[in-house]
Amino acid sequence: MSIHNSLFLEIANCQSSDEPLRRILTDLAIATMQPGGAPYGLLAQGAVGVEDGFIAWVGSPDDVPAGWRGAETESFGGRLMTPALIDCHTHLVFGGNRAHEFEMRLKGATYEEIARAGGGIVSTVAATRALSEDELVAQALPRLDRLMAEGVATVEIKSGYGLTVEDELKMLRAASRLGTLRPVRVKTSFLGAHAVPAEYKGRPDAYIDEVVLPALDAAHAEGLADAVDGFCEGIAFSPAQIARVFDRAALLGLPVKLHAEQLSDLGGAKLAAFCGALSADHLEHLGPDGVAAMAASGTVAVLLPGAFYVLRETRLPPVAELREAGVPIALATDCNPGSSPLTSLLLAMNMGCTLFRLTPEEALAGVTRHAARALGLAVQIGTIEAGKRAELAVWDVGHPAELAYRIGFNPLYRRVVGCWL
Amino acid sequence: MSIHNSLFLEIANCQSSDEPLRRILTDLAIATMQPGGAPYGLLAQGAVGVEDGFIAWVGSPDDVPAGWRGAETESFGGRLMTPALIDCHTHLVFGGNRAHEFEMRLKGATYEEIARAGGGIVSTVAATRALSEDELVAQALPRLDRLMAEGVATVEIKSGYGLTVEDELKMLRAASRLGTLRPVRVKTSFLGAHAVPAEYKGRPDAYIDEVVLPALDAAHAEGLADAVDGFCEGIAFSPAQIARVFDRAALLGLPVKLHAEQLSDLGGAKLAAFCGALSADHLEHLGPDGVAAMAASGTVAVLLPGAFYVLRETRLPPVAELREAGVPIALATDCNPGSSPLTSLLLAMNMGCTLFRLTPEEALAGVTRHAARALGLAVQIGTIEAGKRAELAVWDVGHPAELAYRIGFNPLYRRVVGCWL
Ligand SMILES: [Zn+2]
Ligand SMILES: [Zn+2]
Repeated sequence: MSIHNSLFLEIANCQSSDEPLRRILTDLAIATMQPGGAPYGLLAQGAVGVEDGFIAWVGSPDDVPAGWRGAETESFGGRLMTPALIDCHTHLVFGGNRAHEFEMRLKGATYEEIARAGGGIVSTVAATRALSEDELVAQALPRLDRLMAEGVATVEIKSGYGLTVEDELKMLRAASRLGTLRPVRVKTSFLGAHAVPAEYKGRPDAYIDEVVLPALDAAHAEGLADAVDGFCEGIAFSPAQIARVFDRAALLGLPVKLHAEQLSDLGGAKLAAFCGALSADHLEHLGPDGVAAMAASGTVAVLLPGAFYVLRETRLPPVAELREAGVPIALATDCNPGSSPLTSLLLAMNMGCTLFRLTPEEALAGVTRHAARALGLAVQIGTIEAGKRAELAVWDVGHPAELAYRIGFNPLYRRVVGCWL
Repeated sequence: MSIHNSLFLEIANCQSSDEPLRRILTDLAIATMQPGGAPYGLLAQGAVGVEDGFIAWVGSPDDVPAGWRGAETESFGGRLMTPALIDCHTHLVFGGNRAHEFEMRLKGATYEEIARAGGGIVSTVAATRALSEDELVAQALPRLDRLMAEGVATVEIKSGYGLTVEDELKMLRAASRLGTLRPVRVKTSFLGAHAVPAEYKGRPDAYIDEVVLPALDAAHAEGLADAVDGFCEGIAFSPAQIARVFDRAALLGLPVKLHAEQLSDLGGAKLAAFCGALSADHLEHLGPDGVAAMAASGTVAVLLPGAFYVLRETRLPPVAELREAGVPIALATDCNPGSSPLTSLLLAMNMGCTLFRLTPEEALAGVTRHAARALGLAVQIGTIEAGKRAELAVWDVGHPAELAYRIGFNPLYRRVVGCWL
């Protein structure tokens, strides 16, 4: 988190000193995203006090606490501040791209023809296996930079294109290294149970025994996995197989999350909820019992409108039911080379509104407060309030609804992150 | 076209000199977009000779013409070059934004409630009328910069939110001025017949007589209109009313184009084709006779997937029929505050593929060769060939299909435009 990157106009000043490092950011409209009060938790005239990288206070510019008089003050000309954005579901690390397959499909090729030509996830697995950790990092960096340029300060990154013990570890190491090369927090999810590789075709349980579980153990031992994920679907793994992976996660003390109910309703979200999952993701085919189970467990619904858009799905996730049941809804890019080659979280917000009919306030909560919760980071980030980390975004807009309204525009004025500011 | 803007890494060197200014751009894959040969008109190993702002030759790096030995040469490391992009349908100049209306709708407000709250095009007309020419320019510049950052070098901009003689002229002057503030070519379209303003409610013909035709005359006299456009729809103007505007355009010697068949089939495209229109735009409801008329007249079909996406339309434009009939298909952002607040032409390309099932090659032709034709500029720009202007884009991609494949990513390496380079 300490590397200075002038591209983003950030100041990272982590020199330890006896004096606390204090700075006041003022003349701001602040969408604190604290729930229960005004829409967006909006303070029309606000200021924030930052001390040693944490938010010390949030309030009116007229009520600067005693002891803060004389602190260095920066004025933001009435701009809008929000929490820095959080992309809580990505497959940002992968080899190659799938433009050729995209073109084949649009020229009329069938899925079989594409598969015969080596397309589909198989091609990404081959390309990912062929690259070194360094090469994976180099290919992922432009994607990460694009997310950060829109105010993202935390990004979740999954494994799942290696599908051997060594290649899964290589992906997680690459993901982890990205967080040392840019001032961004990377949270890794181990996704060995993403697909059954060709060499285990028809033997998913053997693949879990011989690759997924050993890779998970090794990833945990190396401190490479912040959470454990899986893909529960007819074309991937059954709930029973996912449960075996989740049992190992529990043994290791790792939180779980799940790709569930994207193409059919196998009860994945219910399983995830029973395991206390941080999130269940996709959810277009989620039924009422899944909604109820998620509400009971406090599991976040992570919606991924980019994949819905690319796959031209017509079945919408049950947004009204999730809302009604009080399930927190997050939004993410799902950045991946096949079903969602999307590197704009602002566009995911617009798609969340346009395609899934979220409100702009729900969309912003979905990439801040609820996204933080989907990563187990609700105590540290996701709202602007005293005690949380000072990870903030300042925008050239007049109202927070504008963030979801525009399409393909980036109104970011300044990302403020790091141990100081 | 001569202003240097370091943001885009451009060099505009227009000093006249006795020596021709020559430069060779080499080590490029070149998607010339010349039709009839390889897909994308692709030269795998190419070079371009630029002389005084024009393309002098395109060919192999090994066949540099005699006389060019020793010319300044820049190597591009194997990157992809395409023609600079052309956004041939925008409403880039307007006042305010419609985020509040976007939010109201998503919170469940009806169109009537939005109208009562002053929403809809009325709100943009009021905001546009309230601004000075300078303020309109200032609000449009960030949108223009966003387009240019993705390699756009020509942008069409319409009037149509003034709806008085003076306010329509003010919009066209603002549009025109944008072209002097940035190294970009602006083509203006007079769109007085965009909507019937409140003060003429129920009297569209009186509005045409008293505002549209006088404003068109005045715009022409001031050299502010490169073309004449209209909105032919139940909620706007009938074909007979549009025909009156087109008659005046013919009298003034101005080319025409038309918003047609977006929400219903009134025969607007056929009317446009009979008038020899440069383009008919939107076209979701275009029928077979409209397709045939456009094919016969060589009128370009400008598709606007951003508006289709925002309005959640389900009826697709007749792409297969247009293709079959040989109608050139262009793509544009339709950038406007209501139905398409889109400022990414790359995203319009992706939407053209994802939503309308264009191929990536058709999408690229739609923002280069065919977009040039929709603006009457086919002789000057739109392909990379000798004699055309050197308006070029260099991309960090391996294959031109990648331009339409990614979503919310900008792989532009360098925009090359201007009287020199
Ligand atoms: Zn995913
Ligand atoms: Zn339009």
